[in-house]
Amino acid sequence: MPPLTGHQLLGSRESAESSDTFAARNPALGADLEPAFHEATAIEIDEAVALAEAAFDPFRRLLPEARADFLDAIADETLALDDELLERASAETAHPPARCAAERDRVVTHTRQFAEWLREGSWVDARIDHGDPTRQPLPKPDVRSMLEPVGPVAIFGASNFPIAISVLGTDTISAFAAGCPVVVKAHPAHPGTCEIAARAIQRAAAATRMPEGVFSLIQGRSHETGTRLVTHPKIAAAAFTGSLAGGRALFDAANARPHPIPFYAEMGSVNPVFLLPGALKARAEGIAQGFVAALTAGVGQFCTNPGLVLGLESEEWRAFRDHAREKVAAFAPATMLHAGIHAAYTAGLGDRLGNEALALIGHSDTPPSPDRNEAAACLFATTQEGLLADPTLFDEIFGPASTLVTCASPSDFVAVAEKLEGSLSATIHGTEEDLAEHRELVALLRRKAGRLIFNGYPVGLEICHSIHHGGPYPATTHAHFTSIGTRAMHRFVRPVCYQGWPDAHLPTELQDLNPRGILRLVDGERTRL
Amino acid sequence: MPPLTGHQLLGSRESAESSDTFAARNPALGADLEPAFHEATAIEIDEAVALAEAAFDPFRRLLPEARADFLDAIADETLALDDELLERASAETAHPPARCAAERDRVVTHTRQFAEWLREGSWVDARIDHGDPTRQPLPKPDVRSMLEPVGPVAIFGASNFPIAISVLGTDTISAFAAGCPVVVKAHPAHPGTCEIAARAIQRAAAATRMPEGVFSLIQGRSHETGTRLVTHPKIAAAAFTGSLAGGRALFDAANARPHPIPFYAEMGSVNPVFLLPGALKARAEGIAQGFVAALTAGVGQFCTNPGLVLGLESEEWRAFRDHAREKVAAFAPATMLHAGIHAAYTAGLGDRLGNEALALIGHSDTPPSPDRNEAAACLFATTQEGLLADPTLFDEIFGPASTLVTCASPSDFVAVAEKLEGSLSATIHGTEEDLAEHRELVALLRRKAGRLIFNGYPVGLEICHSIHHGGPYPATTHAHFTSIGTRAMHRFVRPVCYQGWPDAHLPTELQDLNPRGILRLVDGERTRL
Repeated sequence: MPPLTGHQLLGSRESAESSDTFAARNPALGADLEPAFHEATAIEIDEAVALAEAAFDPFRRLLPEARADFLDAIADETLALDDELLERASAETAHPPARCAAERDRVVTHTRQFAEWLREGSWVDARIDHGDPTRQPLPKPDVRSMLEPVGPVAIFGASNFPIAISVLGTDTISAFAAGCPVVVKAHPAHPGTCEIAARAIQRAAAATRMPEGVFSLIQGRSHETGTRLVTHPKIAAAAFTGSLAGGRALFDAANARPHPIPFYAEMGSVNPVFLLPGALKARAEGIAQGFVAALTAGVGQFCTNPGLVLGLESEEWRAFRDHAREKVAAFAPATMLHAGIHAAYTAGLGDRLGNEALALIGHSDTPPSPDRNEAAACLFATTQEGLLADPTLFDEIFGPASTLVTCASPSDFVAVAEKLEGSLSATIHGTEEDLAEHRELVALLRRKAGRLIFNGYPVGLEICHSIHHGGPYPATTHAHFTSIGTRAMHRFVRPVCYQGWPDAHLPTELQDLNPRGILRLVDGERTRL
Repeated sequence: MPPLTGHQLLGSRESAESSDTFAARNPALGADLEPAFHEATAIEIDEAVALAEAAFDPFRRLLPEARADFLDAIADETLALDDELLERASAETAHPPARCAAERDRVVTHTRQFAEWLREGSWVDARIDHGDPTRQPLPKPDVRSMLEPVGPVAIFGASNFPIAISVLGTDTISAFAAGCPVVVKAHPAHPGTCEIAARAIQRAAAATRMPEGVFSLIQGRSHETGTRLVTHPKIAAAAFTGSLAGGRALFDAANARPHPIPFYAEMGSVNPVFLLPGALKARAEGIAQGFVAALTAGVGQFCTNPGLVLGLESEEWRAFRDHAREKVAAFAPATMLHAGIHAAYTAGLGDRLGNEALALIGHSDTPPSPDRNEAAACLFATTQEGLLADPTLFDEIFGPASTLVTCASPSDFVAVAEKLEGSLSATIHGTEEDLAEHRELVALLRRKAGRLIFNGYPVGLEICHSIHHGGPYPATTHAHFTSIGTRAMHRFVRPVCYQGWPDAHLPTELQDLNPRGILRLVDGERTRL
């Protein structure tokens, strides 16, 4: 593999106009990594978008099979990257190599899944209503519609999944699947991983003869770089995974445009866990083990990290807390993604330690090394009253900290659930009888969360058609959409309707003979004929 | 029928707290209509939303058949309104009674279509991926998801369809179909029509035993009333049809909330029409006739009114213009919806008359009566250069005025299409050979419009599954969604995902046995099993 250059990758060419550079940093060693990355200039950003715009029409015209081949080539190139990718990602994020390999495998899985989805083809929601020139009082026109790509898309990856939710994440792959060229703004905490991934996409694009501007990567750490990309008139939609503050700022910028565009941000989430009596009776220790594993996975740096756990005052709940405390104590502090996240975690813990409504009831036995940006796991405890008295306790702390909330009665669960903000997930441990006895709680959680988990843990998303990684604000900026799973394509398409259009000039998916054999809605009937 | 009261209809009760009242006005007579309508107070708005919030859970729990019965009852009650509805709508908007009857029939059509769509049931996009506890390295969870309602919805009807795109419009009906209670802000130009329609919904709700707060109507003409509704914390989404200025202001308010909500506005649209050579050769007069009929339908007060017509300099294009001029001359001026729209139309014409790039080439022979808020039809002409030199000529003028643009070559068509803003529709008249020769134009229009019409006219929407009434900004605030047709439900639902959830506690649509027999995506296969 060639060495990293730190340049913008604008279509097939490189550019490094600015002398304003920055370096990635190994968070465990506190040492800068080579090379220097050049902040994208306004001209470079504009060129990336202009290339994407020029690529849009040829890219969208490709047969779905050609786009699927492109995706398969991306999966192949990703696999071929081998240790280069994993080692750089590990150096930039302190993720262990095995975690990086798991992320790489997830990229291959979701990329191949979208390729298969394209080949099957029915996702376009093709609808046909035949005309009737003899209808009275007015002739009935022939009307047909299907989902088509919106145009060039801007993507901002996440810091916490340098491979699986970054350049090669579902955002990029689903936009390609939809038929949209992509400009990725690399995450400044893992710019080298981004460059390696981007070069894999470049090779896949060249091998499958995609139009040049189908993909570009720009580097940058300034807010202006991201804002310029989101407010570029030729960008038709944008997707983002990251903090609430960062997502909201870009969401506001996208909406303030003369022509607003949808800005799909996946942001903060507290992911509440309710432990109902039947479950605690049966397996308090097992739940504690699963909970602490979920809490500390990836050093707590998951969007779906369980930040609140609620149980009813009882012997079993106290046993759960004791088990959780023990397991948290055994968690060896580990390095966080970067110094900024470590500082935010430290500050968040400081606030909670100074909060009289909270008691620190458990933490890693080993003290963390601040030089290595390490985080210890922390368990706080409070009561339902304590929680409700302080809205800041509902805020997400990004890292391996959680608050155990003792409730006096099922109505306390309901009172807490009513105050919950939108969340990516909500989890219940219980028996079926518990579910039946807590219907009001379940009904509330169904309103607050995108995914409801029973007797499981929120971290670790299954990559499948039915997964939904979204939820009411602040979990995302638009609860109708997901950033994971095949429904993620919907962010980058819109219906286009053809009235009285000649068959030969219609998109293949809408032609009378249904050449692709896809499932369509024809005169109200779903059929492959 | 009881007389109109001018009160807020809050669930099943009435309220008139404010002494701030306003009257509807007959735009043809310039006379106020009885009764006085009371501006909704903050307390009344809050009560309407609180009732909707209380109704949400019982309403969403109903079987789809029960919601379908509610919709059918609304259709029945609408038909039963008979002349009371039509006469009041005619008095408030100057629409002829036949037009009002056509709107009423359209309500019945779309309401019954949603009822049928609910009974069929597959619209929920149910997806199931079965688990596999033996999978390595990690067990595969059972994951299922479907579309569920978002919560209480606020709706702002249009001035130009007092029956079909107002209280009884697709916005309200699709929200009910989705499972969302609705608070409608009545349009201040036809508050009596709104009250009559609202009482029909009240009767339907009572007859089918819907929860009380499933529907409320508030009256008001102040901006604060609309803003308070859209920014109420318990409102989960809003839909609007109206002007760009009004829609954008509420869109901005919805996005500026601490917890932003989707605000779906259908706003301005210029609806360009391209006349390609083959069509003009074959039928210049017929196209002129159809065009002027579309231009003057409803006194030009359609969202899909054709505001720009483009043709290549030629004998046939000149013939088309002559025919159009003749037909426009024959259009008898007619009363517009209200004095405000009349004033805006008059001001818009004044700007164009003073614009040196434009020539007034045709207008109604009969002068309009300003006392009756009448509009004459007007045809302007310019060249491609004239149009491109002045961006304001791309702005919509709401009323029966259009601009004919002479182009020198097909590349002029492309140059104009590139400058078009998002539009609800774009129309081409031509032969199939014309389409083949203007591929670049067609490709551009596919990006700019929600609906492409061939050898037809944009006004007059077919109510069917495949219709799309949407488009890129400023046609709407979110091009993925439509305000007409069964896809309109998508604005008011979001996926909810269930992981490891016990079968008996899943929504019926996701249970193993598929009791509703709907089409689902099961392990990647579409099946009714």
